[in-house]
Amino acid sequence: MVILSIGIRITKTILYDILVNRTMQAARIVKIKEPLEIQNLETPKPKGSQVLIRVESAGVCHSDIHLWDGGYEGPGGQILKTTDRGVKYPLTPGHEVAGVVESMGEEVEGFAKNEKVLVFPWIGEGLCPACRIGEENLCDKPRSLGVYNDGGYAEYVLVPSYKYLAKIHDLDTDISAPLSCSALTAYGAVKNAQLKPNDNVVIVGAGGLGLMGIQLAKAISGARVIAMDLDDNKLKVAKENGADVVVNSKNEDPVKAIMELTANLGADAVVDFVNASKTVETDMQILRRRARVVLVGLFGGALQLNLVSMPTRAYRLIGSYTGSMPDMLELVSLAQRNIIKPVISNRFKLNQATEALTMLKQGQIVGRGIINP
Amino acid sequence: MVILSIGIRITKTILYDILVNRTMQAARIVKIKEPLEIQNLETPKPKGSQVLIRVESAGVCHSDIHLWDGGYEGPGGQILKTTDRGVKYPLTPGHEVAGVVESMGEEVEGFAKNEKVLVFPWIGEGLCPACRIGEENLCDKPRSLGVYNDGGYAEYVLVPSYKYLAKIHDLDTDISAPLSCSALTAYGAVKNAQLKPNDNVVIVGAGGLGLMGIQLAKAISGARVIAMDLDDNKLKVAKENGADVVVNSKNEDPVKAIMELTANLGADAVVDFVNASKTVETDMQILRRRARVVLVGLFGGALQLNLVSMPTRAYRLIGSYTGSMPDMLELVSLAQRNIIKPVISNRFKLNQATEALTMLKQGQIVGRGIINP
Amino acid sequence: MVILSIGIRITKTILYDILVNRTMQAARIVKIKEPLEIQNLETPKPKGSQVLIRVESAGVCHSDIHLWDGGYEGPGGQILKTTDRGVKYPLTPGHEVAGVVESMGEEVEGFAKNEKVLVFPWIGEGLCPACRIGEENLCDKPRSLGVYNDGGYAEYVLVPSYKYLAKIHDLDTDISAPLSCSALTAYGAVKNAQLKPNDNVVIVGAGGLGLMGIQLAKAISGARVIAMDLDDNKLKVAKENGADVVVNSKNEDPVKAIMELTANLGADAVVDFVNASKTVETDMQILRRRARVVLVGLFGGALQLNLVSMPTRAYRLIGSYTGSMPDMLELVSLAQRNIIKPVISNRFKLNQATEALTMLKQGQIVGRGIINP
Amino acid sequence: MVILSIGIRITKTILYDILVNRTMQAARIVKIKEPLEIQNLETPKPKGSQVLIRVESAGVCHSDIHLWDGGYEGPGGQILKTTDRGVKYPLTPGHEVAGVVESMGEEVEGFAKNEKVLVFPWIGEGLCPACRIGEENLCDKPRSLGVYNDGGYAEYVLVPSYKYLAKIHDLDTDISAPLSCSALTAYGAVKNAQLKPNDNVVIVGAGGLGLMGIQLAKAISGARVIAMDLDDNKLKVAKENGADVVVNSKNEDPVKAIMELTANLGADAVVDFVNASKTVETDMQILRRRARVVLVGLFGGALQLNLVSMPTRAYRLIGSYTGSMPDMLELVSLAQRNIIKPVISNRFKLNQATEALTMLKQGQIVGRGIINP
Repeated sequence: MVILSIGIRITKTILYDILVNRTMQAARIVKIKEPLEIQNLETPKPKGSQVLIRVESAGVCHSDIHLWDGGYEGPGGQILKTTDRGVKYPLTPGHEVAGVVESMGEEVEGFAKNEKVLVFPWIGEGLCPACRIGEENLCDKPRSLGVYNDGGYAEYVLVPSYKYLAKIHDLDTDISAPLSCSALTAYGAVKNAQLKPNDNVVIVGAGGLGLMGIQLAKAISGARVIAMDLDDNKLKVAKENGADVVVNSKNEDPVKAIMELTANLGADAVVDFVNASKTVETDMQILRRRARVVLVGLFGGALQLNLVSMPTRAYRLIGSYTGSMPDMLELVSLAQRNIIKPVISNRFKLNQATEALTMLKQGQIVGRGIINP
Repeated sequence: MVILSIGIRITKTILYDILVNRTMQAARIVKIKEPLEIQNLETPKPKGSQVLIRVESAGVCHSDIHLWDGGYEGPGGQILKTTDRGVKYPLTPGHEVAGVVESMGEEVEGFAKNEKVLVFPWIGEGLCPACRIGEENLCDKPRSLGVYNDGGYAEYVLVPSYKYLAKIHDLDTDISAPLSCSALTAYGAVKNAQLKPNDNVVIVGAGGLGLMGIQLAKAISGARVIAMDLDDNKLKVAKENGADVVVNSKNEDPVKAIMELTANLGADAVVDFVNASKTVETDMQILRRRARVVLVGLFGGALQLNLVSMPTRAYRLIGSYTGSMPDMLELVSLAQRNIIKPVISNRFKLNQATEALTMLKQGQIVGRGIINP
Repeated sequence: MVILSIGIRITKTILYDILVNRTMQAARIVKIKEPLEIQNLETPKPKGSQVLIRVESAGVCHSDIHLWDGGYEGPGGQILKTTDRGVKYPLTPGHEVAGVVESMGEEVEGFAKNEKVLVFPWIGEGLCPACRIGEENLCDKPRSLGVYNDGGYAEYVLVPSYKYLAKIHDLDTDISAPLSCSALTAYGAVKNAQLKPNDNVVIVGAGGLGLMGIQLAKAISGARVIAMDLDDNKLKVAKENGADVVVNSKNEDPVKAIMELTANLGADAVVDFVNASKTVETDMQILRRRARVVLVGLFGGALQLNLVSMPTRAYRLIGSYTGSMPDMLELVSLAQRNIIKPVISNRFKLNQATEALTMLKQGQIVGRGIINP
Repeated sequence: MVILSIGIRITKTILYDILVNRTMQAARIVKIKEPLEIQNLETPKPKGSQVLIRVESAGVCHSDIHLWDGGYEGPGGQILKTTDRGVKYPLTPGHEVAGVVESMGEEVEGFAKNEKVLVFPWIGEGLCPACRIGEENLCDKPRSLGVYNDGGYAEYVLVPSYKYLAKIHDLDTDISAPLSCSALTAYGAVKNAQLKPNDNVVIVGAGGLGLMGIQLAKAISGARVIAMDLDDNKLKVAKENGADVVVNSKNEDPVKAIMELTANLGADAVVDFVNASKTVETDMQILRRRARVVLVGLFGGALQLNLVSMPTRAYRLIGSYTGSMPDMLELVSLAQRNIIKPVISNRFKLNQATEALTMLKQGQIVGRGIINP
């Protein structure tokens, strides 16, 4: 009787809230290096220009491992702690998020419930010079999703504004997710290399980012792409992805190889997706005068940089970090027309998040791993 | 009688040649570190598009000291030899040359005898990508005057084409000469810093190049200029030349000072006219995210570069070497309208070339020293 | 008795609201071409990221006259109606607004009550390509303050986000207000002209925008500025503001004059702040090959454009509309350091708005007129 | 006897000259609109940096018809005479020239006899701002081969400097020739359109230039290409060359079609290879705010340009004329890797030059016609 009388006052909407939406599951880093915990959290309610996204696909990225490990190695072997950079635990990682619009704040415009979207996670505070020109990924005080705020290893993620959403239409969410970090980082790097059709560009590292870098260099520059890696299998895939030439730097002297390929002049640009002491030392020996060296990877270490060679050879070392929202929109357009093709190799459930990170750490994921909550 | 009969066969032109033009004096580096020798050389005869310039003013530049010393110090203290870079002795140094047109090859156009000109010395081979877009100063195979070919410490200098001449009209040749290297290097560097009116730019080194850099930053960017040096006298002059703020890095902690001046964000750009290990180490600690560090000086040494900070902070290290012919033409225009003012402090005769270089080496020349042959 | 009992329930805040803040006065266009009405409107309450500004200075701009007139003349004399472009009446005009922060929505960051600010009025919807890179002034679906939403001819104005506010610190609000439109339009135009130090640029129209254009061209380019107008008094002021040469196009043949001033080559760039048939016809006759013609003014009319001359002469016609938020921040920086100096010539009370617009329409305001509500 | 005594004085070299090299055949315009004459001319002897090229392939270009006709139609129907632009008759036309090095002046470097080369014909005087940055095609005082100097409708052509030669290695000379004008013009235009991957670009005119424009837009931008023409056959080929969508502007309303294809926003860029009154009038109605309209064709006529729409809509009209030497080198690189494929449809002997021009004029040549002397 009592139950019945309460039941009468429960509208459909409220019932839906209780049963479906009120809480959500999230895979969270509670203690660094410990297995992620599946927690029940209150589902956020979007207000103002916020949007709640139901996560369909969350990419598993190397930088998630840094968050899990609590830091990464800097020059001289010291550990740079994530907490020193402002990261707070417990944290739901996951910055590559595609899904559908679940609900919206009252100021949201131009989106509809259930619309398929990709989330731009590199959110800035909005007032610095970078944010002012749409380069929020380079904000002075970043607020990135899945890094400084809870991300997409969860059933739902709260996005601070609809302006961070890209419509993906018929594009698959698994294919879309890596466009917001893996492909975006490759794209930002390739753009920073400022390639022309008769340039020789060396792509260092033929892993996921490198392969996408090769695809993108072909798609927008017409440059001649030389892929460099230690692994013949990866180089084989690099060729299939468009590399004009490949160099295995374990089997042959990379400096000699590049010099021969460039009429002894050196490369016009190098995009280093590893960015370790050893690779960058090689980079500095294969440069044509005026060359651009784009440093992308977060491997760490230090370089003994010859200062005089910088002006006399007119080199440019360019640090490249992810990409902008306009860049991501361009990637969505390229992916929709099959001009680029992210490779998804592994799929996980939310409760397999620890397994996903472990496999990635151990080098067992070849393309991109995706969590489907 | 005999003399008379010979005299008959000597035309006016030949006589002029013998008496006036046939040989010329040049101050040459014959042996490195030895005093320059005054030699009598045959005066070159221009053909094709070549032009012979009667030198009125030849600037004395720090890089002339490297030529005299036969090299400069690289990282780890080893000496980088000029002969390894293709320099050949005996050599007439002098790459900052202003004078008048003496004679011209048959293909020369647009210039007249006695016309006042400034010589662009950063000549390239013409076929490389840099030369193709007018950046001959960054040629793969440079042929610079006063470095790889005889320069302006002489009565005459042969310029390979009239295309390397800028008309200076009423501008003084002493004032003009430094526009082709000292001011040009400062200009190229300031352009590479890509300054906007609300940027904070730190100019490191308030010597000749630094002062010109300050003038140029004010003339074309509207940025806020912070001058940094160890010497209070130089900083005083820096303020007179337009620096908004000055920092003495000997008397105060430069990192702390810059951070306070930039609301704890760091500088948007640094132009380092010293480019020594110590200055660049400081540079790397005063950078706002996305900052450009323009490395100009040839002081030498090495930097232990933290590789991960390059992408995460999105820094750019930009080597800047002299400037292009279009840049030099812009400088001539600015100097003609008194928007920039090179400071000439010492004048020498040709036979005082060794003295000029010695004084410069010992830091006894404040502005620019000029040789008037 | 009744009154007293109600009084008890009025808190201090509510009382303040009623007496001070609850309603505000605004000078509004209710019917086109009729005198503006002073209306009592409810004072907006900011929520979310909105900010309520107490207007101290509102610039009176030519385009306010278009709003008042209900349109402007297009080619062939037909009237382009403001209502066809989406303007709705009654409207409070006023897009040049400086004042102090009165109150803030709960998501506002980085601003404090009573802080002095300048408002960026060229607000976009946020999703188009222009908005994505901070060029909201060129949004596909603009929402400009004082045009599509109520503006600054009022005691208070509601700004949709704190991101549209620039801190002006000690800068006077009267001096600041024109930076958001008059100076901004001149700045956007000068930037679009892509000037170099040895360029000849012709500034057409030496009124308020033209004078600011001259100041800005001097401040950031080093180009040689030729000012052109029909009025010798304006040209005199142009010279005082930095014009290198002036040409009175009424008293002398402007084509002949410019050709003589440019060695018969023509101007590298023209910035036309009038943009009428007659001025642009002249513009097209004074161009050097590769010249940029920046069209800024809203005078109207048409040009018979010779199509073949576009490729053969490689001209560029560039429409320039106001400027971006980053541009405005740069202007604030330049004004704070006295590098540019907007000229304020007339001040009005809110109830003199009609008088202000009338005087402007009749050409009786030389610098900028400001309403101080 | 007499013959014998003369014979003695003929050296081998002279004999060779007489028999082989001393004179050459050229197809020349002697009187406008009259058939070209085959003349025997003295074979030029290269000196200095000049190079004599033995022509293997000379492209037949629409602008050769203008030279033959003695002018083209300007706005209002008046004829713009080629002689008023400095063209002098008799003239050997032919600016698309590929062949082999026959002989070289004494200052030529980096080329060998019989080396296969493509000639850059858009030669400038070298001193103007355009020439200074390698944009000789936009020189103030052009000296183009085949226009102001004798060109490639001949057995040999004299090139003023080896700097105007591009090595083509294994590339066919017939395929190479159009790279120096037809493809170059398309490339310059596509670059001027500043395309991004999510831009919609309309290519107007699917003839030879248009098809190359489509190939190039795909090769270097990733933009979505909409081809527009009156001819369904051409549009079919356009699709095969990479157009994403095609619009027949005769069969459907082009404005309506483009608006539907662009979500009612308009195109981000238009590249008009026709540039006639009618096409440009359409162009101006299909533009998104901020759109670039690149005007390339030399069809002629005038446009009634609405001046106010230029600033309010922030349009850019960009005249595009051929391309630069660096552009041509990039095209050679793209063609060598089969990324672009010029279509050669007709081949002629030198004495068929009049026939070739006539067929082109009558629209009977679909791809490129080539003269093989």
